Parts: sequence; structure tokens; C-alpha cells
Amino acid sequence: MFEDKFVQFSASTGSIDLVDACIVVDVQDWPGVRLAAESLAQDFARVAGNDPSQVILWHPGVTLTSPKSTKNSIIVGTVGSSRIIQQLESEAKLDTTKIRGKWESFNTTVIDQVLPGFGRALVISGSDKRGAIFGCYTLSEQIGVSPWYWWADVPPQKHLEIYAISHPTWHGEPSVQYRGIFLNDEAPALTGWVLEKYGKYNSKFYIKIFELLLRLKANFLWPAMWPGYPNPGASFFVDDPDNQRLADEYGIVVSTSHHEPMQRLSNEWFSENPDGSWNWLTNREKIRQFFELGAERARDHESYFTLGMRGEYDKKMAGDDPAAVVQDVVKAQRNVFEKVYGRKDAVPQLFAVYKEVQSLYESGRIKIPDDVTLLFQDDNFGSIRRLPTTSEATRSGGAGVYYHLEYVGSPRSYKWINSNSLGKTQHQLMQAYHHNARRIWIFNVGDLKPLEIPITFVMALAWNVRDIPFDGLKSFFATMAKREFGQELAGDIAQIWHEYDRLVSLRKHELIEPDTFSILHDKEADLVLQRWKTLLEKANQVHDRVSDESKAASFQLILHPVKASYIYVALQITRAKNLLYARQRRNSANKAAASALALFDQDFDLSEEYHRQLNGKWNHMMMQPHYGYEETWHAPSRDMIGGLCRRS
Amino acid sequence: MFEDKFVQFSASTGSIDLVDACIVVDVQDWPGVRLAAESLAQDFARVAGNDPSQVILWHPGVTLTSPKSTKNSIIVGTVGSSRIIQQLESEAKLDTTKIRGKWESFNTTVIDQVLPGFGRALVISGSDKRGAIFGCYTLSEQIGVSPWYWWADVPPQKHLEIYAISHPTWHGEPSVQYRGIFLNDEAPALTGWVLEKYGKYNSKFYIKIFELLLRLKANFLWPAMWPGYPNPGASFFVDDPDNQRLADEYGIVVSTSHHEPMQRLSNEWFSENPDGSWNWLTNREKIRQFFELGAERARDHESYFTLGMRGEYDKKMAGDDPAAVVQDVVKAQRNVFEKVYGRKDAVPQLFAVYKEVQSLYESGRIKIPDDVTLLFQDDNFGSIRRLPTTSEATRSGGAGVYYHLEYVGSPRSYKWINSNSLGKTQHQLMQAYHHNARRIWIFNVGDLKPLEIPITFVMALAWNVRDIPFDGLKSFFATMAKREFGQELAGDIAQIWHEYDRLVSLRKHELIEPDTFSILHDKEADLVLQRWKTLLEKANQVHDRVSDESKAASFQLILHPVKASYIYVALQITRAKNLLYARQRRNSANKAAASALALFDQDFDLSEEYHRQLNGKWNHMMMQPHYGYEETWHAPSRDMIGGLCRRS
Repeated sequence: MFEDKFVQFSASTGSIDLVDACIVVDVQDWPGVRLAAESLAQDFARVAGNDPSQVILWHPGVTLTSPKSTKNSIIVGTVGSSRIIQQLESEAKLDTTKIRGKWESFNTTVIDQVLPGFGRALVISGSDKRGAIFGCYTLSEQIGVSPWYWWADVPPQKHLEIYAISHPTWHGEPSVQYRGIFLNDEAPALTGWVLEKYGKYNSKFYIKIFELLLRLKANFLWPAMWPGYPNPGASFFVDDPDNQRLADEYGIVVSTSHHEPMQRLSNEWFSENPDGSWNWLTNREKIRQFFELGAERARDHESYFTLGMRGEYDKKMAGDDPAAVVQDVVKAQRNVFEKVYGRKDAVPQLFAVYKEVQSLYESGRIKIPDDVTLLFQDDNFGSIRRLPTTSEATRSGGAGVYYHLEYVGSPRSYKWINSNSLGKTQHQLMQAYHHNARRIWIFNVGDLKPLEIPITFVMALAWNVRDIPFDGLKSFFATMAKREFGQELAGDIAQIWHEYDRLVSLRKHELIEPDTFSILHDKEADLVLQRWKTLLEKANQVHDRVSDESKAASFQLILHPVKASYIYVALQITRAKNLLYARQRRNSANKAAASALALFDQDFDLSEEYHRQLNGKWNHMMMQPHYGYEETWHAPSRDMIGGLCRRS
Repeated sequence: MFEDKFVQFSASTGSIDLVDACIVVDVQDWPGVRLAAESLAQDFARVAGNDPSQVILWHPGVTLTSPKSTKNSIIVGTVGSSRIIQQLESEAKLDTTKIRGKWESFNTTVIDQVLPGFGRALVISGSDKRGAIFGCYTLSEQIGVSPWYWWADVPPQKHLEIYAISHPTWHGEPSVQYRGIFLNDEAPALTGWVLEKYGKYNSKFYIKIFELLLRLKANFLWPAMWPGYPNPGASFFVDDPDNQRLADEYGIVVSTSHHEPMQRLSNEWFSENPDGSWNWLTNREKIRQFFELGAERARDHESYFTLGMRGEYDKKMAGDDPAAVVQDVVKAQRNVFEKVYGRKDAVPQLFAVYKEVQSLYESGRIKIPDDVTLLFQDDNFGSIRRLPTTSEATRSGGAGVYYHLEYVGSPRSYKWINSNSLGKTQHQLMQAYHHNARRIWIFNVGDLKPLEIPITFVMALAWNVRDIPFDGLKSFFATMAKREFGQELAGDIAQIWHEYDRLVSLRKHELIEPDTFSILHDKEADLVLQRWKTLLEKANQVHDRVSDESKAASFQLILHPVKASYIYVALQITRAKNLLYARQRRNSANKAAASALALFDQDFDLSEEYHRQLNGKWNHMMMQPHYGYEETWHAPSRDMIGGLCRRS
């Protein structure tokens, strides 16, 4: 989104026409590069409205004789893997010195004579496979295909003319080395949708995730893992044998959640072992073998191994001395690496300093090897609990952050729609960055779907923290709005998103109850509600103005979150008024009760409207109940409002 | 109700025909006797369907020459006041020895030749004026006119033939000397009705009360006294100058409530004095003068003076040493009697040992003169807090009981419909009786209207405790049911009233909340509700069966209380189910919510049905809100139900 432009939509000196250019990848290059090239070919069709670009798998001696052979081409390759890149360098047509050896970097250059039989070319050379892949997807974005073209139905821009600019551009390294998401707390919304659309969490689903991540320049995944239906719930590695293989091919580094060590999922264990068995003290050897299989299975796939151990199902470790147990587990896990890979530090590893594990860690009784990444966490509500100390900041394994954009736990889960204040998120993440917690950033994104904007934000920040200055939130919204909806409405949409961000920063929806905003003092409730009302009016106006093909995206990214929030806040305040008026025995009490019920119905109808969009493409995605929290932190199992009063 | 019968509806040896008999009262007898005789004359018309009996005010030398002069007569007179009685005794036609000097006793005798020009006569001779009055009203009841003929619209029985039995009967003395009610907590129901029907609490209203009391053989009244609209609220003595005079004429002993001393009402004071002025320490002389006017004003009227003093508006007495203040007040009040009447003990006096006054009294620091009646009280919920000690039981002023059938105060007011368990009431009152607390029984009857049955019960008991044995509750209900609705339905109605009594003994309506009866354990709620439902079915059946002219009485005395109670309990249980089902997220939650709202509407409709009876005769009488108690003891100002839940 913020990368230097290497594309324009009218010709200029030295520019080359990319429409109908073939896309060339060395057959020996990484599969992920070929997959990205194929996406790029489709994207050209999406933008230019013609057939997909021809993708040519190059090998020595190939001669292109087709009618298009004299046309321009886009050459994509990885330094060290692509023989085309190697040949261009040897012919001094290309110089990759500035990216060579770097992490996920790429260069774009226009070359007049690249290969025999080919015309002029835009050459995208990656420092590594993801450098090349990100080059492809950056080109996709720059010609007009949003990373959210499928997941949020952002219509590709239409361009009959697309040109590569003649002067070279340089991209990377990213600010944060591993940038990824955790699909978590995924029922009922995401799971409901996955079961309907894909049958299970299989590779047909996951390649949609991989592609999205790569378009966002992310590279890392903690896969979905909730116990559930069908029993025992999602297990990335065994639900579809292609999941792990395709992740690697696409270029995604697979890891497992903070409490699932050694590339094994909890559901794998509990599909074969009873409750109570996940106990290192009583079941050490069986668990060790379980770990070893994870290490073996990951052998040919780029992986990031989670170390340590928690109790069953993400609960606390049982036992009298959990610190000693964790230390022993880590030792055993390191021995597994030595056995399987020859060295204890042969593979990337992380140790999640999560919840009570942080206390154990800070007791000093758990020693984590220097090459293992320490993964610190936020407090589940967006404030990072702990930054690396000076000594931790220089360890070879580095440090990272596990950060919640959705959450299941105390005091209350929030997993409905976006309730993140990005101003706060930015502040927290930048602290982490400046304290060297930049090896990994993992974001718990829950059901993924309603978090398009915060995901875009954190991935942009993770790619290049300098792209969004501290006072750059409005500018970020404007840039994203322009990408998704075009220049004309970008200003208005950015204003909406910014006001939304400010309003949710008052309090997350899930924690707003009838007594949250005072209906008696300082007109607090009325003022908050008026802000939402004004925002809803603006959102409706924008939604009316966007083109028909943008309506679905506008509904998902603008209208729905604003309207759902307005209804939510209005309903809680109306419930408060109903209660107050009823206690005052005012005639208006019943009117307020009727309004509350009407708002409650509107909320239901709005979710159903979401589900009906695009003939049910996103059916189930708004299934998360959000009304009716009670004594526990659990999200309600079904929407319910209580406390309504009626006077005679 | 339980008196020996001196009437029958077919002729027998020596019986005399009473239809068209004239009613004869010495013109010099008490006015109340003449008033009772006039009521009796009307009652004969109500029963026999002809013109009212002729009432003849007798004086010496009167000669009756009308066509009816040779007919039978009913002679009513007071021993010592009626010259007719005196003459009959002197002629040895009558012997009143057995009642002479007794309290409120009477004798009935049939005499063949009473006076020149009169035929045979039924002679009712009273030991005192109320003895004669009660004799009249006992005859009214025995010929078929219920004490509730007007207040509960019980239709008079129809008899074309009415005969007095030849053998004499004896009645009295009553078990309790003063038997009365306290019209209290009278807004909004009674006050709303009074304002509509009479404009204010004037003598047109009060003579209806006096007549009812006398028909119930009661003799005592604490008049209505709530502050209210029109400001300052009801003041018996000044609202209508005839109130006090007519009470005396009718034969009602007027007193003032436990916290309104010296025949003055609070509203009298506050109509001329500001809040804060009712303070003996700062305003002694003015208050003393206020007392003196009360004593003067009552001079010619049978009165019972309340002594002592509480704080403003029935609150605690302020000050550091309230006991000393109360003692000084009593001393001053006694001095007033000495000044006005010549002696400190010239008039009947009572000292109400109510609430905190009981603590002051029991400290031993307040000495109450021996001739003053000690009025003990229940705990506001029907359990008598304290009985007279052995020494208190023998004091010349005696002791009495102030007992709540309705109540305003902590923990919760109950002033809607009857929620008294008469089994308990009987047990408590009999304890009082046996411990010699039988000088006065005063019953707080709130709005009066919905308490027809408990009022009847306690007045019957006060008149003669032997009439209702400890296991006689069913029998009482049957007797009353027969009187009000006839023999045929008496058994069924008695069963309904008895089951009602048992059900309200579980818990007063006002204290039944959704969580009172468990909807989870032992089917408690369902079983209670089923009992109410069965009872309602029976009440409906009976209501269908009663004659058209009894429908209004049946609605007021049978159907309404049962139906209102059923709705009340059903609604609370339905609210509980709504909450439980909603928390369980069951589909049935919304059905329960709809049921709750429907029941709430039914309650409103039922009250309106009450108000529409007899073209609005009892409009306002069911205005007391009863749903929506909250943190305070105050009855709700308007019906309101809260806590309703709705699921999506």
C-alpha cells in the first residue's frame, strides 16, 4: 500500500506496456513464485478485462514462437534460484547486489532485451522466494487488485493501459521478520462458513488464507485449532495432508499456537488420548513421541516450532512445580530436534511467555536457549504486558509479540466485530518494535472476517513501521480507503473509519452494558449515541454513493460495522432508558421497551443481511452472538437481552 | 352471623308475621336507635319487595289509627331510655334483668299485647344504645340482608313471609369491648373512589362506613388521615362538621390513629404549621393548645382519646431522650382532661405501644396511668409482638390490639387485595383475647374494599370468640358463603375461600418475586401455580353458576381475588421462566416473555373490569399498583414489571 510505485496507467518515457505481457518464471524457481505469478496473471485479467496473462515456465533452450512472443514480458525470479535472474546478472543487465542476502526484499527493473525471443521486460527479482512473491503481489496491488479483492469483495480497478515505470525500485527488508495471524476462537462464524463452503478446514480453504497473507506481505500462520464439531475439531496437519505441504509451497511459515508445542495440535492429541492424559509428569514418554512426530512431519516444510507446554486445552499447567515441568519439557523438545535434525537449534523455535507462563518465566527458573524466540504478549486487551529487557533484546532468537485483535477469555471475550482502537495498537506495537520485539508479530484475528481494517493496518506496520508515522492514522485510513474504493470517496470513508476507531476506543462493544454510559449525567449516553448516529448517516450516504460493484465491499468494510455498532450502543442505552423510565413510571418506558426490541430485531436482520450478501458468499460469518453476557467471560451462546421493563 | 335465630320464614306456633309490621321507637331513645330502625325498615323492603316498613316515633298518648294500626309491630328500645321498654317491664310483659347493665347486649321477645292500638309485637330491647342498634341489625341480617349488601353488592334474600319466633333470645356481651377499623393507607384506591363519589371524606361517605360497622357489630373507628390531595389530606373532624356529630349519633366511638393524639389529626396540624413544627421540645405550648381543642371538640361525642406522641407523619420521635418527651406529653395530655372534663380519667384513653414506642415503654421509663388502655400491636405482618403481662392484664384501662390486615411500611407494604391468612389471624387474636387484650381490637383495613372476608371474620371473632372454634375456619367460610350466596353454592365457595386462605399463607403477593418459588426444584413453582389454576377454574365455575343479581358480589368476593392472585403468581413464575429459558437460550424464552406481557395486560384488564362493575360503582377501588417493588418498602406508584428477556 505504501510501496514505491513501479506502475502507472499511461505511457511515459521508457515505460513498457504490461497489458498482455507474458509472465515468465524459471521452472526451477520456488513453487511459491510460480503460484504468485499465476495469481498475477489472473489479476491482469481482473484489471484489464481480457484473458489472464500467459505464464511461461522457462527452461534453457525454450524458444517462444507464439504470436505473443515478441511482446513485453514480466520476469519474476529469486536470486540464487532463477537462472533467468542469474543470466541477466551475468550479462550485466541486472544488478541485485542491494538485495542479495536480504530477507524478503525485491527489486523492479525495466530491461529492454532480456531473453532471446522476448521483447522488453519488467524484471522482479526477489532476494528470496518471498521477496519474489511479494514483488508479484505488490505489482498486483499497484495495478489495482486489493489484497481483499476476494475476502472483502473489493472490486479490482479497471485499467485498459498499464505501464511499468522505467526507473528501478527497491523494497524491503521488512521491519518485522515473521508477520502472521492466528485463526482462533473460530466458531461459530468462521467454522460455520468453512463447514458450509469447504466441508472442513482443508487446503481449499487454506490456500485462500495463504494467498491473502502473501498479498498482505505476511508470512506466518498459527492455524485454526478449536475443539469442536466434527470431533475433535480442526487439526491443520491431519485434516488435509495438503495443508502443510501447500503452506510451504505458497511460502507460508507454519507454526502452532502458544500452547500447542512441536507442530502438533491439541486436537491431534485428544483425538487419540482421553482427558487428563496431557500430563508431562504421568505421560512423559508418550508426549515426547507425540512431539517427535511433529518434528519429523515438519522436516521438509518451513516451520516455526512452539516450545514449552501448558495444561489441557489452553489452561494452566497442573502440578506442584509447573516451572520445573516446563523446563524439563523444553529440554526434551530440544533433544527431539537434536535427534531429528542433528542439532538442538536446527529449526526456528519460539517460547510463548503467555499468561501464567510469564510468571514462571520471570521467576528465573526457566532457562530458554538463546536461539529460541521469546514471544511476549499483550494483556488480551491490546496493552503489551512486557517488553524485552536489554539482555533479552540482543539474544540470537530475538523476541516477538503475540497480540489480540479478538479474544476469548476473562473479563469478557470479544469476537464479534472490530472493536480495536488502531491508535492504541500502533502505540503498543511501536514500543515493541523499538524494544527489539520484532522477530515475530502474531495477531489473534479470531474469525478473520470482520477484521479487514485492523489486519491491514498491523501488516502494513509490520512490513514497514516507517510507512505509518505516529500521527498517520488518518492518512492510513485515507490510503486504504483510496485503494479499496477509489480517490473520490477516500476522504469521507477515512473520516468514517477514523471516527469509528475513536468511538470503539471509548469501550469495546462487549463491555458496554446499559449502565456504561450515564443517561443522567452530562448527557453522556446521548452524546455517544449521537456520534454513532451521525456516523451511521455518513456511512449510509457513502454506501449510497459507491458503485454497484463496490456495494458488497462497502457493506462489509463501512456500513455493517458502523450500523451494527450504532444498533448495539443504541440498544444498550435504550435498555437503560427503559429501566430508568420504568422505575420513574413514565409513559415513555414502554416506548423505550418497544424501541429496544426493535433494535434487537434490527441487529438480527443486519446479520442476516450480511449473510445474504452475494448470494450467501459469507453466510455464517456474522453468527457470533454478542448480546447477553452474564457472570462469566464466555461470549453468549445466543443473542439475548434481559432486564426489559413494562409499565401498565 | 352466628347469633341465635329469632326469625323464620314460615309460620309456627306463637310466631308473628313481621312483613308490613311497623317499627316503633321511643322518640326519646338514642338517635342511633332510630337510625337503625330506619335501616331495618328499608331492609324489610329489600327482602319482601314491598314498601319500607312504617317507622313510628312513639311518645306518650300517641294513638295509632292508621289502617295498619292493628297489625304487628317491632318495638326497639334501650333499657333506661325507652319509655316503651320501661312500660312493658312495669306491666311485667318484659324482663330485661339478664341484660341490664351489660355492654352492647340485647334481648328479643314476642309479646301479644304491647301498647294500646298495637297488635302483637317483636320487642328488641338493648342493654344500651348499641345493644338496641345491634338488635336491629341482627334482625336485618336474619331476614336476609348481609352487612355487605351495599359495600359488596350482596343481593338481599327474597322472602314473602317473615316471622319472629315466639321464644325469647339473648345476645351479648361481646367478647371484645371496642371493635373497630382504621381506614388507612387510603390512597390511591379508596381516596380515588371517595373523591369521585363524594368529593371528599365527608359525612355522606362516613355514614356508609358507620352503617357497615354497626351491621358488623363493630363500634369503633380510626378515620382516614393520609396527607394528600387536596392538601393537606383527609381530616375527619374538619372536612365535614357532621362527621364527628353523626358518628356519635350513629353510635360509633371515634378515636384517632396511634400517632395522632387527642382527637386531632396530623393533617389538622400541618394545614397550619410547617414541617419541623411538630416538636414537643420546641413547640410545647402550641401543641398543648392543639390538644386542648381536640378535647373540647369531643366533649359531647363518645370518644376514645389516643395519648402520647410520635414524630412527624408517623415517624420516630426526634430528640435525645424520646422516653422523657413521651412521658411529659402524656402528663400534659392528662392535665388537659382535668382542665376540660374535670378529671384526668374522665374519658376513655389509649396508649399505642407501636414500633419504637414499644422499646421506650419497655424501658420502664414511661408510666402509663392505670385507667389508660395499653394498645399492643402486631409486627405489621400479623404476628402480635407482645401480649399483656400478668399485671398489665388486670389494669383498669385494660389492653387491646392494633392489628394489620393491610400495611404500609418495611419490608414491603401490602395494600392491594386480601393476603391475610385467617388461620393465623385467628390464632394470634385468640392469644390476645386469652391474655386479656380484649378492651379494643383495631384493624388496619387500608382501603377497606378488598378485605370484606377478613373484616367479617375478625368482627365475628371480636363479637363472640366462641362462635369460631380453632378448627372452625372452614365452617366460618361456609356460614359466610351461605349468608352471601345461599345454601346451594355455600360449600363450593367455602372451599374456594379456604384454599385461597391456604395459598396466601404461603406468602403475601407483594413478597412474591420471580425467584420466590423454585422453577428448578421439586416442581415448586408449577405446583403452586397449579393450585391457583385449579382454584381459578372453580371460581369461574361458581361465578358462572351464581344468579345474575349475585354476579357483582361473586366477582368482588370470589372471582376477582382468585383471578388477580392467579395472574400475579403466574406472572412472577413466568418471569422466572423467561429469565431461566433466556439464560439457557431456549426458544421458549420469547414465548414466556410474551406470556408475561399478556398476563400483565390481563391484570390491568381485570382491574378495569372491577372498575366497570355496576356502571362504575367501585371505580378506582383497584387502583393500587402492585407490580414493581424495588429497593424500598414503598408500594409501586404504578405497575411495572422488569427483567424481561428476549432471545434472537
